[in-house]
Amino acid sequence: MNVFVIGVGLIGGSMVLDIQREYPEATIYGIDANDNHLEEALKIGVIQKKATFEELDKADIVIISIPVDVTIEVLPKILTIVSDTCLVFDVGSTKSLICNEIKTHPKRRNFLATHPIAGTEFSGPTAAHQNLFQQKTNIICEVEKTAFKLQEKALEIFAKIGMRIRYMDAESHDKHIAYVSHLSHISSFMLGKTVIEKERNERDIFDMAGSGFASTVRLAKSSPAMWTPIFKQNKNNVIETLEEYITNLQEFKELMKKDDFTEIYNKMESTNHIKQILNGIK
Amino acid sequence: MNVFVIGVGLIGGSMVLDIQREYPEATIYGIDANDNHLEEALKIGVIQKKATFEELDKADIVIISIPVDVTIEVLPKILTIVSDTCLVFDVGSTKSLICNEIKTHPKRRNFLATHPIAGTEFSGPTAAHQNLFQQKTNIICEVEKTAFKLQEKALEIFAKIGMRIRYMDAESHDKHIAYVSHLSHISSFMLGKTVIEKERNERDIFDMAGSGFASTVRLAKSSPAMWTPIFKQNKNNVIETLEEYITNLQEFKELMKKDDFTEIYNKMESTNHIKQILNGIK
Repeated sequence: MNVFVIGVGLIGGSMVLDIQREYPEATIYGIDANDNHLEEALKIGVIQKKATFEELDKADIVIISIPVDVTIEVLPKILTIVSDTCLVFDVGSTKSLICNEIKTHPKRRNFLATHPIAGTEFSGPTAAHQNLFQQKTNIICEVEKTAFKLQEKALEIFAKIGMRIRYMDAESHDKHIAYVSHLSHISSFMLGKTVIEKERNERDIFDMAGSGFASTVRLAKSSPAMWTPIFKQNKNNVIETLEEYITNLQEFKELMKKDDFTEIYNKMESTNHIKQILNGIK
Repeated sequence: MNVFVIGVGLIGGSMVLDIQREYPEATIYGIDANDNHLEEALKIGVIQKKATFEELDKADIVIISIPVDVTIEVLPKILTIVSDTCLVFDVGSTKSLICNEIKTHPKRRNFLATHPIAGTEFSGPTAAHQNLFQQKTNIICEVEKTAFKLQEKALEIFAKIGMRIRYMDAESHDKHIAYVSHLSHISSFMLGKTVIEKERNERDIFDMAGSGFASTVRLAKSSPAMWTPIFKQNKNNVIETLEEYITNLQEFKELMKKDDFTEIYNKMESTNHIKQILNGIK
């Protein structure tokens, strides 16, 4: 089984590490715009061979794990090259544009749109590690547009690496993921920015920061190259979530200004049941 | 050595657990407005005896770990009851009001204003655990107003439980802590609120949430009873940080609306060096 991973970073790299373990007969080929990453991935055993787009005709499985704007650009070309029995899936954080882009492609049925909800704030091949996907959710969009046998192939892989599956249409995916992922990244980046700006004038401020601060700004370590195109592709949904978030913050501020701390207490208390919700999230 | 802990929750409870280990001769007395907490603390060995305010005259050390509004109320009374050689310290997240409240108290020199930057999002005696303060920062305000021998006593305890000390005036503490702690809590609570509101109409949205979301909303599990008075006491500083945060979020939103994704990339990239900053935070 020839598995090609395009983009040997955190997600693609972690996925092929698990696939190597589950399918010892598989050969893992890596393609990456960054040759240093490719060499690194080869050295640490994330991939077994360096490859090029031209070789994709011998692929059984192609995993596309690159920034979502590049996926839009290369997916039609990839589909044209691969064989009729090849499964191609992406792992990007936006799904509508990509599904729309290839909806009339002759090889549409070779493609499966997926979004594994997994990751860390780190990037590059050295961030890849086994079992990243254990117990995590994989959202699959427009499953009915993928050839049945290739759906089966994909589901077998996802089951072996420990993922549970949720089916969703691409528009709903993009709308909901704006709330539970994209907004978190913006809140984190802007929180980091606010404090860094303050620190320019006030030295030693970070000496006062504890684990709570670290937790809320953790996502501000994420890769701008990965996240800028996500925000761009999901622009309208992200703007909507941002507006709701800003409104909630402004209301909180106004309550403080009017000394309505009873209502502030109530707002926090009614959000407290996030505890139960988070218990279900690994 | 008689150690009285007023408020047998996460912070006070964890501190006396470490003190019991480091000072086997110490007797730990607990005082709490919630008798269930007191019974629980007794049962799990966080305290050795239940006590009342009247018994504080036999205390060598009093730790005040209760909501900051209650501290303001009870500290003058506590100082009046304790002996001349007793060390009283609080662990609250605001320092100006409390220092101001007792600045002319005849027993001012028995009091040390501290803020250990440690904790979790959990509360109550069962949240208490050993070594919570290892490698953590303890901010001490107005140290010069505390009797020298009592400073020494406090520093010995803080050293034994693993804390490093930072000295600061109370106003600077309140101003800076608004950025690196209070704002994080509000951003987290309001993020949780925004997503919960959405979820009312869109079921299953949390099924899509991953560890990134969990990290950014973790602090929304915090106790409103603890945090409402903190925001109240640090009102002006918190409002200022909130305004700066909201401005940054609005700028981000405007850049998205104008499709200026180059500048969005730059904003994220310039915040990325939070990596190096966070490496220093446990």
